[in-house]
Amino acid sequence: RMFNGLRLSLLLTLTAENHLIFFFFFVCGPRYRIRKVEESCAEWLMIVKHGMNCQFAFLGSKKDFMLASSAIFRRQQFLIRSLGGCTNQTHQKRMQETKALRGTSLEADAEHILRAITPTLDLNKHKGQAGKIAVIGGCREYTGAPYFAAISALKIGADLSHVFCTKDAAPVIKSYSPELIVHPVLEESYSVRDEDKLSISGKILAEVDKWMERFDCLVVGPGLGRDPFLLDCVSKILKHARQSNVPIVIDGDGLFLVTNSLDLVSGYPLAVLTPNVNEYKRLIQKVLNCEVNEQDAHEQLLALAKGVGGVTILQKGKSDLISDGETVKSVSIYGSPRRCGGQGDILSGSVAVFLSWARQHLSAAEGDTSISKINPTILGCIAGSALMRKAASLAFQNKKRSTLTSDIIEFLGTSLEDICPAC
Amino acid sequence: RMFNGLRLSLLLTLTAENHLIFFFFFVCGPRYRIRKVEESCAEWLMIVKHGMNCQFAFLGSKKDFMLASSAIFRRQQFLIRSLGGCTNQTHQKRMQETKALRGTSLEADAEHILRAITPTLDLNKHKGQAGKIAVIGGCREYTGAPYFAAISALKIGADLSHVFCTKDAAPVIKSYSPELIVHPVLEESYSVRDEDKLSISGKILAEVDKWMERFDCLVVGPGLGRDPFLLDCVSKILKHARQSNVPIVIDGDGLFLVTNSLDLVSGYPLAVLTPNVNEYKRLIQKVLNCEVNEQDAHEQLLALAKGVGGVTILQKGKSDLISDGETVKSVSIYGSPRRCGGQGDILSGSVAVFLSWARQHLSAAEGDTSISKINPTILGCIAGSALMRKAASLAFQNKKRSTLTSDIIEFLGTSLEDICPAC
Repeated sequence: RMFNGLRLSLLLTLTAENHLIFFFFFVCGPRYRIRKVEESCAEWLMIVKHGMNCQFAFLGSKKDFMLASSAIFRRQQFLIRSLGGCTNQTHQKRMQETKALRGTSLEADAEHILRAITPTLDLNKHKGQAGKIAVIGGCREYTGAPYFAAISALKIGADLSHVFCTKDAAPVIKSYSPELIVHPVLEESYSVRDEDKLSISGKILAEVDKWMERFDCLVVGPGLGRDPFLLDCVSKILKHARQSNVPIVIDGDGLFLVTNSLDLVSGYPLAVLTPNVNEYKRLIQKVLNCEVNEQDAHEQLLALAKGVGGVTILQKGKSDLISDGETVKSVSIYGSPRRCGGQGDILSGSVAVFLSWARQHLSAAEGDTSISKINPTILGCIAGSALMRKAASLAFQNKKRSTLTSDIIEFLGTSLEDICPAC
Repeated sequence: RMFNGLRLSLLLTLTAENHLIFFFFFVCGPRYRIRKVEESCAEWLMIVKHGMNCQFAFLGSKKDFMLASSAIFRRQQFLIRSLGGCTNQTHQKRMQETKALRGTSLEADAEHILRAITPTLDLNKHKGQAGKIAVIGGCREYTGAPYFAAISALKIGADLSHVFCTKDAAPVIKSYSPELIVHPVLEESYSVRDEDKLSISGKILAEVDKWMERFDCLVVGPGLGRDPFLLDCVSKILKHARQSNVPIVIDGDGLFLVTNSLDLVSGYPLAVLTPNVNEYKRLIQKVLNCEVNEQDAHEQLLALAKGVGGVTILQKGKSDLISDGETVKSVSIYGSPRRCGGQGDILSGSVAVFLSWARQHLSAAEGDTSISKINPTILGCIAGSALMRKAASLAFQNKKRSTLTSDIIEFLGTSLEDICPAC
């Protein structure tokens, strides 16, 4: 597949006269290195792929050539840095990593999976059939996070996206977008008297329960905050979701809650945790009672997922690693070096949609047999990760250092269309 | 008309050299089928039309050819699926449907009707003459829906658009757009003590009554919610609107109210109900005491409309079906396979405007004689449906799976201008 990509590049480059020198410089550089490594390593693929995208963009027209060539030099330098530079130390380290990957074939064919589980659009379908997602989050301090998660679900193709948040947060989240259905039902300690806690907690739960069965997936945590009374209510919501067999994606402060009360998700196969580096560290400490070990990243993730009773964990990083305690997969394609807050919320909303679609796909008789044996939570994580990484990459190409989460959301549609055209 | 479309496609394709094989593959497939069916069926026209649009997009430039051809293959597959696949069973079913349509000529000439009833713009006219619409809806949970309905009315060409909502919802709806006039007058049970209900209900009604006679049409239901006290107030508003002979379009939770209290609209010729698949099911069960029968869709709709005393019903679906108990019309042109929530709100706002215009048109002496015998509520539904379907189709071409209701609203103006240029 990689060499097909290179051949395609050769073809395109030859048709654009005068670009031959640039082609040699740009493509042969990585190719030479590829020969040296002599491994079909996923990370190489990502970088070459990413490079190709840039190259296509630069090949737009002849008059762009001057601009392109200086940009290409910078790009080449970036690639050399990405590939570990020229120092012996980093080179050796990369060789070790490459060896570690040998034979395990961790890298998921994320685009194939995304295409396989995304439902075809059909004039006969009606509202709701492409997914109904609910985000539990949004408090006095945080309103952006639940909005990012909920709007991302819609932009990917879910039909309905709800947010359950505190009374304070609701008007603000509503004002971000008329597309969301926002329920101002949660309460924080400061607005509840001790003697009322039990009855208020009951009302909140009843309110969420009215909707529970309709949802294809919950996202618990974006902008949830850490108020004890609120987290106590959310624990009860989690228990009800589990009783109703509703899949749950847990991120942000939801992970804080779950790390301290592992039994909330332990052994629930429809739970997905999406920890970032710090959240992952706390999970490892709590479950495996040790520190994060980057040398044995895959084994440790596998042990962690097994340790929480086979929940699926998406460990976010330079490559996203995904495990359900049985298998480990990685997604390394695309990506962006920009680390603005809120990207995790896009990911949690995306995983929720793809997870729902994967379950729908697998339950249909005519499912794609190449993926029919894979856990739908794993499929959802792979597709969500790939789409998020592609959108982030396109947004970064466009906005560079000033890329914000909203910019990435604007590229979700194009990214999905590139990978899986609607028609 | 269909063959004109094909010829145009041929012309465009031949001017773009090298695309001949792709053209043969893409266009001749459907053409072969068209010959077999030998019927000028509206549904075929829609699908072919839709297909052509996609094709034009792909034909952008030579360098897109490689990418386009694989997309075209997928598109071809999508078309084959849409056209009923290759199985004998689905083909026979489609043939039956085609035969069922033969001779009945259900499909409305929607664009002609839209042009006929849309008032000419005139420098001598003053504010309000192109329509004053009011939406009754918007509560603690829902604020997007009434906004979508009200802003759509303005975007189509109404002069003034009001929203009557709860006190909680008002600031949020106001924040979506400064174009709307938002009245925070409704109340929900949680904010009203039992002993105050009668007096508060009286005040609400008095507040709405002050405005009632000025409105050309009410839209009742978008984001109304199901609070019993609120619905009780809205029942009274409906009665007053009926006494004042103000047309009423009923959607969403307004349909929940009306299905449970049919006498609110029964026998009122200026009422329009716009049910989606679930709302229609409940109406059929309540009025005809049976299940939805897709084989006799037209007869059942006719019976339903007659059963509610000749109100007009717009049954939303793959084709929109419209009946007032006397006649059935369908609108199948354009449309989109995206089913994001909120599209029904655009439709209700659009129908309200066109219904007002149709009444205005028919009351004018110099009315278009070809439509002068048609019920204005039917005309309003046909025009509203056609415009909504065209805007949805344009938005979908643009945004594909990530199309949201706001995107569709942005295309209302272009769609109207395409069908009925302002000057």
